[in-house]
Amino acid sequence: MSKTNHNSLDHLFKPKTVAIFGATEKSKHFMGGLEIQGFDKSKIYLINPSRDELFGLKVYKSLKDIPEDTIDHLILTIRREKLVESLKIIFSEKKINTIHIFTAGTGEFDDEGIKIEKEILNLLNDEKINTRIIGPNCMGCYCPRGHIAYLKSFPQEPGNIGLISQSGDLHSRLIKFGNLRYGLRFSKGVSIGNCVDLQISEVLDYLNKDDDTDIIGVYFEGFSNFHPYEGKKLLKVLKTIKKPVLFMRGGETRRGQTAVLTHTGTIGTDERIWDAVYKQSSIIKVPTSLDSILDYIYIFYTYINRFKKQGLNIDEIQYPKGKNTLVVLWSGGFGILATDTLIKLGMEMPTFKGKTLEKLKKIYPIKIGSLSNPLDLPWIEQTKEYLEICKAAISENIDLVIIETDAASNLESKGFQAYYSNILKIKEYVESQNKLLILVLYQYPSESRKAYYNMLIKDGFIVYPTLPKAAKSFLALYNYGMKSKAFKH
Amino acid sequence: MSKTNHNSLDHLFKPKTVAIFGATEKSKHFMGGLEIQGFDKSKIYLINPSRDELFGLKVYKSLKDIPEDTIDHLILTIRREKLVESLKIIFSEKKINTIHIFTAGTGEFDDEGIKIEKEILNLLNDEKINTRIIGPNCMGCYCPRGHIAYLKSFPQEPGNIGLISQSGDLHSRLIKFGNLRYGLRFSKGVSIGNCVDLQISEVLDYLNKDDDTDIIGVYFEGFSNFHPYEGKKLLKVLKTIKKPVLFMRGGETRRGQTAVLTHTGTIGTDERIWDAVYKQSSIIKVPTSLDSILDYIYIFYTYINRFKKQGLNIDEIQYPKGKNTLVVLWSGGFGILATDTLIKLGMEMPTFKGKTLEKLKKIYPIKIGSLSNPLDLPWIEQTKEYLEICKAAISENIDLVIIETDAASNLESKGFQAYYSNILKIKEYVESQNKLLILVLYQYPSESRKAYYNMLIKDGFIVYPTLPKAAKSFLALYNYGMKSKAFKH
Repeated sequence: MSKTNHNSLDHLFKPKTVAIFGATEKSKHFMGGLEIQGFDKSKIYLINPSRDELFGLKVYKSLKDIPEDTIDHLILTIRREKLVESLKIIFSEKKINTIHIFTAGTGEFDDEGIKIEKEILNLLNDEKINTRIIGPNCMGCYCPRGHIAYLKSFPQEPGNIGLISQSGDLHSRLIKFGNLRYGLRFSKGVSIGNCVDLQISEVLDYLNKDDDTDIIGVYFEGFSNFHPYEGKKLLKVLKTIKKPVLFMRGGETRRGQTAVLTHTGTIGTDERIWDAVYKQSSIIKVPTSLDSILDYIYIFYTYINRFKKQGLNIDEIQYPKGKNTLVVLWSGGFGILATDTLIKLGMEMPTFKGKTLEKLKKIYPIKIGSLSNPLDLPWIEQTKEYLEICKAAISENIDLVIIETDAASNLESKGFQAYYSNILKIKEYVESQNKLLILVLYQYPSESRKAYYNMLIKDGFIVYPTLPKAAKSFLALYNYGMKSKAFKH
Repeated sequence: MSKTNHNSLDHLFKPKTVAIFGATEKSKHFMGGLEIQGFDKSKIYLINPSRDELFGLKVYKSLKDIPEDTIDHLILTIRREKLVESLKIIFSEKKINTIHIFTAGTGEFDDEGIKIEKEILNLLNDEKINTRIIGPNCMGCYCPRGHIAYLKSFPQEPGNIGLISQSGDLHSRLIKFGNLRYGLRFSKGVSIGNCVDLQISEVLDYLNKDDDTDIIGVYFEGFSNFHPYEGKKLLKVLKTIKKPVLFMRGGETRRGQTAVLTHTGTIGTDERIWDAVYKQSSIIKVPTSLDSILDYIYIFYTYINRFKKQGLNIDEIQYPKGKNTLVVLWSGGFGILATDTLIKLGMEMPTFKGKTLEKLKKIYPIKIGSLSNPLDLPWIEQTKEYLEICKAAISENIDLVIIETDAASNLESKGFQAYYSNILKIKEYVESQNKLLILVLYQYPSESRKAYYNMLIKDGFIVYPTLPKAAKSFLALYNYGMKSKAFKH
């Protein structure tokens, strides 16, 4: 049945030629995306019998007129009534490797839409046709290395995050927000829609083998009615996948599933089946929110790239072995809130004993705050002792160090510079011990805070705006480490 | 035992005279706070035998030299070894109405510190002394109407939020962050510390009767060893309180309670006892995080002030009667995430039926998106139909409307203006129905988004950065309404 091979999906993400069938002024966002990614304009072909020129490009009356034997990727943007007829014309006129059907209002909408999808599938069953289709009802593909995007707001710099989403808007926002919030960069992304032909399992398999991709984010809604074995196929891929998959499933509640029907028209599945999937594979379940999946991807992205920079392969990376956390902060009250929060989330906070405690007491005969965990160290964050206490407290049994940090009003001041130098040295020390450091910087509108945040991101710190976000994201990383070891292939 | 009367706490928040005993260059933050709040500089008295002048003010050698019969509020900032001796001198030299002991390292620190606290209490037991003390180990008071603050970063504009906190840093950040994030304004705030004399129950009782205060936020850690009946007293006040109390308790976990001991040296109590307190009173339990208490206070603040502006008294305000939510957004995927999130949190999302559905279909023969709840309305947010659909969908059984909104890159554009006008009209309509509208604006760094957020806050919208924050805060409001009705006095 499946006609996928690597080649065909390469055409999707790294096409040499792109055609927009039914191009109008509304195709502006596709053109903007291609242009900003530097796609060769001479290899973009617009087709519409009722236009002569668009976006400074000649518009062809028909695919036949195009001076190419093959089109790698065709974007079909035409109203649903003309979909099947257009596809017939397309197939008859040119060899097309991949098609993105942008059109919505098909299977998710009504019986007529389901009929249209069925007819599209029938066309594809013709043995002579090797075209793969994504959609309908989706936004399309993003691949900076392939110079394609469907919005001009997407970053041009490539990265190693792969994304598959059954929601186009979510796909777009993950890319845009992820980049602006956390500096995330992507290898390949696809808004896959109703999955009439190309299935999530196939793209997952492709990304699993893709050298450019190290982390995979998935937003899943349901299976297409036309692919009864897709559940089993997806489970098979998930069971054998060798990369971290952050999996968010819309329709976890029954009420949510009724919403799925009107969105992608796909079939959700019982929560219990999914519980089994999470148990039987290394994939990480992500709570259903934009923030959660971004937070999780962010920690994997930073963690994996840190070790890749050291020359490690993705399968050589060691994940945190425990959940023992040292918290360093400035205030007793926040220390108590931090303790309650971390303990409730299932983290552990060892107290100082024996040699470590002796060492700490020797460095700092404390007068205020507390030499306990959390280390409550007000007023001394600019001193040599602060650095020494922190280093001494990071004993062997600590896996994670969380520092609640803050921006001084003057980042240029000597005092702040001394503090920042301490923070940098703690990072260096933590990483030399193969442990993890996360900073928490509470958010409110302030110029110095913004500048400080940018400074931290530039210097490679992992920074979350709240402690629960930091802890939950760490737990995702820790759980992946445990699971991937258990499911080592 | 108790010598409290309203008068004495008025001296704390609206002193006519302030003295800083042991003033040094380090008292800068107190001076900065008083100055920015416009406290009469001629009524600030600094005392330190080893200084002549500080901050442009004469420094007195002793309290005796001060040309006032009584000092309303004295800030005692002196190392712990000299605390008791200093208090004896103070009491012998001048009538003092209230004292704030800033000094830390007492009961929370070691046995010597506990002894010091005991001696302070002994001094207060003298019948001739009517002074009330806050602290030790605390930051002090904030009251814009009384022109006092202990940090210059606090807002000068008064409001109707009262705050009591056993963590000084948390107290400060609630005021600062709350103001910068959500525009919150406060009536009276006190960082109360180890509670050697003045108890949380007393301040609560005072704020309950205070005309300037409508909402009360509490951060509680534990009871002072010296006040064995304080638990019962606090419960009594909480049971009869007539204003919304947002109560956050540090030390909810056992591990957290060990941290409490080194912070305020107070005694935490078993979680089960607290469960009973929450059941027996109208107070609202707040999850242990800075963000949670800010989010909760924000919705009460906006909600209560909306009805007060309409001329209602605080006890006439009706709270939401149900949890039926209508969600309006732009994207099917986000609609599913929203549904899952709201349902899991215990909200309800009625679907459209009967006349409402007929009305909706008549207004908008939909071609894309979905006329369901969530209302998924892409591309039409600038049209008259958008407004009409939203209004028609807000049927009688809807209690809350949530709109996921976004900023256009150009806020001046005609399209965006049309959208914003729709949003304003929806707000007007929702409020005319005595219902609640909350906007969700996802955050990422962008100038237009910042400008849009400021515009929304200025126009009186309630805006949260995520849907879970919006829903949890609404539930706090709803639960308060239910509880306050049940505990109507």
